[in-house]
Amino acid sequence: MPAISFARGVPAPECLPVEELADCARAALERDGKTILLYGPGGGYGPLREWVAAQHGVEPSRVVLTNGSLQGFVFLAEHLVAPGARVLVEAPTYDRPLKILSRLGAEIAALPMDDEGLVPEELERALDAGEPPAFLYTIPTFQNPSGRTMSEERRRRVAELARERGLLVLEDDPYGLVRYEGTAPPLLFELEGGEQVAYSSSFSKTIAPGVRVGYVVLPAALAAQIEALAVSTYISPPFLTQATVHEFLRRGNFEPNLERVRGLLRARRDAMLEALERHLPADARVTRPEGGYFVWVDLPSGPDAGELLPAAEAAGVSFVRGTDFFPQGGGGERSLRLAFSFVSPDEIAEGVERLASLLAAPAPSAL
Amino acid sequence: MPAISFARGVPAPECLPVEELADCARAALERDGKTILLYGPGGGYGPLREWVAAQHGVEPSRVVLTNGSLQGFVFLAEHLVAPGARVLVEAPTYDRPLKILSRLGAEIAALPMDDEGLVPEELERALDAGEPPAFLYTIPTFQNPSGRTMSEERRRRVAELARERGLLVLEDDPYGLVRYEGTAPPLLFELEGGEQVAYSSSFSKTIAPGVRVGYVVLPAALAAQIEALAVSTYISPPFLTQATVHEFLRRGNFEPNLERVRGLLRARRDAMLEALERHLPADARVTRPEGGYFVWVDLPSGPDAGELLPAAEAAGVSFVRGTDFFPQGGGGERSLRLAFSFVSPDEIAEGVERLASLLAAPAPSAL
Repeated sequence: MPAISFARGVPAPECLPVEELADCARAALERDGKTILLYGPGGGYGPLREWVAAQHGVEPSRVVLTNGSLQGFVFLAEHLVAPGARVLVEAPTYDRPLKILSRLGAEIAALPMDDEGLVPEELERALDAGEPPAFLYTIPTFQNPSGRTMSEERRRRVAELARERGLLVLEDDPYGLVRYEGTAPPLLFELEGGEQVAYSSSFSKTIAPGVRVGYVVLPAALAAQIEALAVSTYISPPFLTQATVHEFLRRGNFEPNLERVRGLLRARRDAMLEALERHLPADARVTRPEGGYFVWVDLPSGPDAGELLPAAEAAGVSFVRGTDFFPQGGGGERSLRLAFSFVSPDEIAEGVERLASLLAAPAPSAL
Repeated sequence: MPAISFARGVPAPECLPVEELADCARAALERDGKTILLYGPGGGYGPLREWVAAQHGVEPSRVVLTNGSLQGFVFLAEHLVAPGARVLVEAPTYDRPLKILSRLGAEIAALPMDDEGLVPEELERALDAGEPPAFLYTIPTFQNPSGRTMSEERRRRVAELARERGLLVLEDDPYGLVRYEGTAPPLLFELEGGEQVAYSSSFSKTIAPGVRVGYVVLPAALAAQIEALAVSTYISPPFLTQATVHEFLRRGNFEPNLERVRGLLRARRDAMLEALERHLPADARVTRPEGGYFVWVDLPSGPDAGELLPAAEAAGVSFVRGTDFFPQGGGGERSLRLAFSFVSPDEIAEGVERLASLLAAPAPSAL
């Protein structure tokens, strides 16, 4: 079997509704080509803004459609973060925002998590400790990289703190709809009312990442500022991709496609958890996400993930080191992010065996 | 007749090849959907990078495809401009880059032009005057806003100065192929050899602005840095739009479509120049571009363009004030940018009459 990637946090190619999107792109251009092919609002293609706005119960002007949701994060960070500004993040968290914040000169304060997500007492302590932060970045559901989901009780407390302290929160939620079992807790955005909580998501995991259609729902004043920044960066976003997504929604394809994707990925999640249960050392800790793309593995008796990675790659299996998801030196040395989204269930079983075989030899600290 | 816009620097809707692009989008997704719908290189869709690279005789890795060429300008400016850094521009110049440079804290040095474009002696003086600038931004052909084209002799001198002084030049060339008559002078990029001159363009004027497919051809080391910044901003750009453009090129539609667009716009340029000749006061100065979208009008005996604009809008015709294209307080008070690209030849004749009627009453300074 060729190399197996637990590193790629992307959907398996069979998840992509290629034929349907081809027809949607054609139909969207035929129906609305003269709008799609000229410049227009920096906040995105009108009908899709309206669809997203209706989903979240806001005015369309509060929705900014971006080139993937990361572009929305960049706009928000560029707007809010002056060099030296403090930004609160979860530890671990998605690595790309960490790099963007570093590039902008932010002082990153990493808040500890446990299996119920961000610990509100730690957030409170951070708010008491210094200058008011520019914002808090959180992925409360099926977090990248840990797969953890913040409990409802904690969500209520975080929403309360946002209100009481005037803390701006960016709730990033790309994975929330990719749920295989259980009941979704309420969004921070819903609990707080959308005055202090901004909400970002995308169609990358529910339709296709390559369409690069993300969005952020913002308080009204901030939305106008972010839209102005979008205009000043690219005049208007590519309406063709946004209109293609809108056509897909309009035809009622979204829910059936999502159900299909959930089935394909649930099988992969199950294969991953089963294989890890069977093959990992007894002291390994593994998260058990009800959705999303990722499992997080702690190996208390080692080896160091940075040493394990080249050995794993030589054995034909890859993952991302835990340290990539913490600010420099902040932890993750004995942790691994395993993505189960891209490879097949059989490859997952084989990949975990390859990985586990490298852990079978007793690590120094276990002697 | 409803309001006539000489403000919108966009192609007339009949220039847009809607049906062909609808078919290209479908065909591109059907042929290469699994690549287009996943993440990929931050520098853009491989086959289109290769096409652009072949046009300019460079390696594909030196081409970064962006979400319109303005996004490429933003990347380059973010990478090169620290607060206080000096950037050289033409005066007048495209207003969006001026705003972006201001936002980044650049010190903008505006170089005077005449009918042959940027004056090399002024560039030399600016290079002698202070710290080496981060770069020079120039639109040498059918410039926005002036319609002017830099002469070949001056291009040679600017290329020489770039080499001798180690000056990085960004040659922005969105309009070069939209030529109605005459012979194109060589590109700065060609004259200099592409070591100190970066070249940006897009398919906005040759296919459609709404596809948002621009590109920048960079020296190799800089290309790698700009591609990394693109990855850190949006992971990868929307391949669907880029693949749609590539399909359009692959089918051999580019040249016939461009010829058609040239015909449509040449008629508008002719209508604009003829009407201005007929109706403007004798002392008005008008550029006579051989291509592009814009005519620049100086009205030495007034009125101030800022006072003229509301009166013109009330009379059903709009334009952009000259002052928008200069750094704050840098000039343009008695100048107008007239775009002839969007409205029909009949509307152009009518719009110029409306505008001229406001100038007929002797201005105070002409009494």
